Amino acid sequence: MSRIYNFSAGPSMLPVSVLEQAAKDLVDYQGTGMSVMEMSHRTPVYEDILSRTECSLRSCMGIPDQYAVLFMQGGATMQFSAVPLNLLPEGGCADYTQTGQFSSKAASEAKKYGTINIVASSKADNYTHIPHITPDMLTPGASYLHITTNNTIFGTTYPRLPETGGIPLVADMSSNILGQVYDVKDFGLIYAGAQKNMGPAGMAVVIVRRDLMGHFRAGAPVLLDYQLMADNDSMYNTPPCWTIYMAGLVYDWVLKMGGVAEMEKINRHKAGLLYDMIDNSTLYTGAAQRPYRSIMNVTFTLPSDELTREFLQGAQQQGLVNLKGHRSVGGIRASIYNAMPVEGVEALVSYMKSFELAHK
Amino acid sequence: MSRIYNFSAGPSMLPVSVLEQAAKDLVDYQGTGMSVMEMSHRTPVYEDILSRTECSLRSCMGIPDQYAVLFMQGGATMQFSAVPLNLLPEGGCADYTQTGQFSSKAASEAKKYGTINIVASSKADNYTHIPHITPDMLTPGASYLHITTNNTIFGTTYPRLPETGGIPLVADMSSNILGQVYDVKDFGLIYAGAQKNMGPAGMAVVIVRRDLMGHFRAGAPVLLDYQLMADNDSMYNTPPCWTIYMAGLVYDWVLKMGGVAEMEKINRHKAGLLYDMIDNSTLYTGAAQRPYRSIMNVTFTLPSDELTREFLQGAQQQGLVNLKGHRSVGGIRASIYNAMPVEGVEALVSYMKSFELAHK
Repeated sequence: MSRIYNFSAGPSMLPVSVLEQAAKDLVDYQGTGMSVMEMSHRTPVYEDILSRTECSLRSCMGIPDQYAVLFMQGGATMQFSAVPLNLLPEGGCADYTQTGQFSSKAASEAKKYGTINIVASSKADNYTHIPHITPDMLTPGASYLHITTNNTIFGTTYPRLPETGGIPLVADMSSNILGQVYDVKDFGLIYAGAQKNMGPAGMAVVIVRRDLMGHFRAGAPVLLDYQLMADNDSMYNTPPCWTIYMAGLVYDWVLKMGGVAEMEKINRHKAGLLYDMIDNSTLYTGAAQRPYRSIMNVTFTLPSDELTREFLQGAQQQGLVNLKGHRSVGGIRASIYNAMPVEGVEALVSYMKSFELAHK
Repeated sequence: MSRIYNFSAGPSMLPVSVLEQAAKDLVDYQGTGMSVMEMSHRTPVYEDILSRTECSLRSCMGIPDQYAVLFMQGGATMQFSAVPLNLLPEGGCADYTQTGQFSSKAASEAKKYGTINIVASSKADNYTHIPHITPDMLTPGASYLHITTNNTIFGTTYPRLPETGGIPLVADMSSNILGQVYDVKDFGLIYAGAQKNMGPAGMAVVIVRRDLMGHFRAGAPVLLDYQLMADNDSMYNTPPCWTIYMAGLVYDWVLKMGGVAEMEKINRHKAGLLYDMIDNSTLYTGAAQRPYRSIMNVTFTLPSDELTREFLQGAQQQGLVNLKGHRSVGGIRASIYNAMPVEGVEALVSYMKSFELAHK
């Protein structure tokens, strides 16, 4: 087997030990005589997988009891709809910050369900920074403030969370959940698509303060009702059983690695290697402004499209793949989530060095 | 490895060869150096998996070009919402038949979006048969007639499709898709959760006549828009990549086995073995009326709860598992989808015989 370093923004790398465990148990899960993919979700063995998965996520993030944990289908995009359908009353209003493509999509979708105020935006600067949010910028009576903690495409993150003056903070944490430490109690709701830092695509995790549930919009699709999902332990209908199982293996891996604090330490080290390289280079230019740099998605550009193409081709030949930046930023994006080993980042830095030397 | 015979109604058995292939390729898919679970959906290798999967399904079912094939998240339950949101105009009406629990749920959900007429029901007979539908029973101007081709819980199926006099027929085919031959051209829309006859849970396949799309309800969650999903080849957001891949392996297996016609022949043989046993027994009573018997879910009862418990315990000891009937029918349910080998059904019949002899 020859594994490569996959810098994809998502779906993205999974820990090799997790994949090996999954492969080993795929046909016959721990002597049950069946695959996890074949298990009725209404059997003790699967119920045990589900409850251990939730338990491991609670351990990883220190999720208090007053928060429900939901495993839902549809990824983060479905949550763009579900959040207002659950938290925004008919005729109500909510505040959104616009810090990238996904936060814009979240706001557009929410506009179907009420008054949405964009209280701050970095669009005019092509999302190279994160606006500073203070309570006086927010709408009195807003049901929540929505932020995207890490912007996958632009490689930016909040250096500190906005102060909301009591308005519940709702966060799309798809691209840095489990990658750095957050205090769940700072949020009313956290959601995250699974396919960046948690497992295969096909699921979103929702962590929601229980008192915010119970106001689901009449006439909306039943499967988006947080209270119903909480009351049914995420099994109102058949859940994405395999995806949940895989996420559970990843959560256990994070715990075994020392938890999220340790992951953050490693991630800061990995990102530091790349940013140091960029900052000491005359060839590479960081795309994000320094105070807002993400430790998950490192974005930079080269002086020309031709050099960028050459850089990507050379990287591919060395087993460093999916480094092409999103078309709205151009250049290079290295997504270095938890499962990207330090060795992968070191290999990339080493390649960047030799590429720069060859193009002096 | 000791595989067992799993008669679960869903999630349910998958072909062993499919599981073995998936296990073999799990860590490193065909020399790409990564798992299918780690692949960006925007890469040629994954786009190839997706397009081959669609192509194989089209081959299996003979799906003509004028039908779009969509891979969506949320299972059949999400389609209970999506179907009216796409096909039922504001203020419009649709007809539903009530032939079991899921058809009732589909109708309840649709009532959020328009006038829903239950044109026929077998509820008064605890769903032991399927009402005969004729065009004069339908509502003039109805947007569609919704049926459930196979009722998983009650073990019934339509001996022939309803005549609708031109009203588009919409079918929830979750529990017998690929298990028996249908002519797609008889339907306006077919949908099916993946976890019975197609793959792991976490996805629904939607096969929709293209002229029926394009009328998505304003203000509904964006991910449920059929036209949008068709325009984006099911990749408006990150699709459930692994689930699609697994479904593709199952489609290829069906084709290798000789296609759906051959699967139906085998399924009729398997069901026949069980129904013959039931009909020649004084201990077992078939739950469904004969003309409506399903070849996917065989339901029967024993004279007492005590005998039922004893039957289930003995079966479990012989590696025949998940045979307990749904609480609304009681007794026994043997789900014998495509992946249940004839040997599994023969083992069950043999056990039924010896159990009957021991209780004469």
